[in-house]
Amino acid sequence: MEAVSETRSHGGIQGVYTHASEATGCEMTFAVFVPDHEPGARLPVLTYLSGLTCSHANVTEKGEYRAACAEHGIVFVAPDTSPRGEDVPDAPDEYDFGKGAGFYVDATREPWSRHYRMRSYIEDELPRLIAERFPVDAERSSITGHSMGGHGALTFGLREPARYRSVSAFAPIVAPSQVPWGEKALGRYLGEDRAAWREYDAVALIEDGAQPPPMLVDQGTADDFLEEQLQTHRLTDACERHDIAATIRMHEGYDHSYFFIATFMAEHVAWHAQHLKAGD
Amino acid sequence: MEAVSETRSHGGIQGVYTHASEATGCEMTFAVFVPDHEPGARLPVLTYLSGLTCSHANVTEKGEYRAACAEHGIVFVAPDTSPRGEDVPDAPDEYDFGKGAGFYVDATREPWSRHYRMRSYIEDELPRLIAERFPVDAERSSITGHSMGGHGALTFGLREPARYRSVSAFAPIVAPSQVPWGEKALGRYLGEDRAAWREYDAVALIEDGAQPPPMLVDQGTADDFLEEQLQTHRLTDACERHDIAATIRMHEGYDHSYFFIATFMAEHVAWHAQHLKAGD
Repeated sequence: MEAVSETRSHGGIQGVYTHASEATGCEMTFAVFVPDHEPGARLPVLTYLSGLTCSHANVTEKGEYRAACAEHGIVFVAPDTSPRGEDVPDAPDEYDFGKGAGFYVDATREPWSRHYRMRSYIEDELPRLIAERFPVDAERSSITGHSMGGHGALTFGLREPARYRSVSAFAPIVAPSQVPWGEKALGRYLGEDRAAWREYDAVALIEDGAQPPPMLVDQGTADDFLEEQLQTHRLTDACERHDIAATIRMHEGYDHSYFFIATFMAEHVAWHAQHLKAGD
Repeated sequence: MEAVSETRSHGGIQGVYTHASEATGCEMTFAVFVPDHEPGARLPVLTYLSGLTCSHANVTEKGEYRAACAEHGIVFVAPDTSPRGEDVPDAPDEYDFGKGAGFYVDATREPWSRHYRMRSYIEDELPRLIAERFPVDAERSSITGHSMGGHGALTFGLREPARYRSVSAFAPIVAPSQVPWGEKALGRYLGEDRAAWREYDAVALIEDGAQPPPMLVDQGTADDFLEEQLQTHRLTDACERHDIAATIRMHEGYDHSYFFIATFMAEHVAWHAQHLKAGD
């Protein structure tokens, strides 16, 4: 692991790092904010998964999470959204497939299956690296994300509820199997057998009996993607049908941008902190 | 004036606008955040001047001011740093002169004097437009800025202390006449007679008897520009010699970036709010 930059901010260190990833077979970049802490302390960790076309950099610059993470003593990890580099197959004319659009799956179809393994990267490889190299308590871990990354956060949380103390999302894709972004990505990464898509679909996971850890979702009503791609109501309905006590909030007039995310970021961090520190 | 975008954030509206500027003879872009407020209310206004190479966009994306402005009920105005457009003469190979480097002066030398009139723009034209088009109380106005924009804020505050309730700066150029960035810019915009530079130099203004409104300056000790270009100690010395009670803080390990600015932004907004609302 190599440090690209380490910058003092809000009393802590905002770092950007690269490493050769086994899971994705390429060099990966990620950002970590470590707040000021007592020597020897091990802090809870919140992982933020970014959306389509994004890298670690968007939330690092625009996410406004550092003040809240400093206040609550939480390490904030922001991975990239897909494998990168010249060796990685891409769909350069498509913003919603290929590089920048990993959809947090382990692809099973050629030519994607070698590098597009963001599920293994986020579930196994990156947390191991973070636990080795940063002052974190890996047992106290939560996950959040935006849009495609909200889909990622919800599906990681639903598949492994014991691993995450809490899960939240900003404007997530809640049912990728039923919307154009997801149908395209899952179809090409996983093949046309839709049974294989279900573990990558929050609503399908709930229908199949998954019980998430405490769950918080924020969604803007002026989000241009709400009607066609996000369809929050499908998550609300699934939670109601399966007696899941999620908090799903609609916010009048907010769109899909980081202006929306930044507005509610401090609340998400405080909410995760409450779960991450329960029993301390 | 035309709206480029208006986006809901932190309960208010983050807007970006363009207008044909008389002062600079070109189309200018600026950003305004208006927090949620009672109908008919007129809010105090804080203007933020950006640094070299920046436009309104840097602080709008990375400045982390909206939560604090929403909390304190303050309108935040972020102008551009220079005239723009194909008709505006430039020094395209120099990041520290020409477009992006207006230095908040009214240039008197050809070919710069037609468009490079950022002093008139910030002092007169933009505040008039803001007062006409936004719910502000122009009598309650403060100013801040970063680097070249910190120089701008300090010199506006020192020249017209009655106009600004308070002035602050992040990593400002405090004595442009005595450092390379300033010598280059002032020499070319204003000519080689250094007497003409003094009204654009915070330390020289203090030496010439100016009394600022309440003044707050934050500076990082790990700022790569501190020693050669910023030289904060010259401001500290001038304030001491002239009995000016400024607050000038050095922050261990902070650099020149928006990670530094964002760390102290909420404190600056709260400090200005105290002065802007005194006597309410």
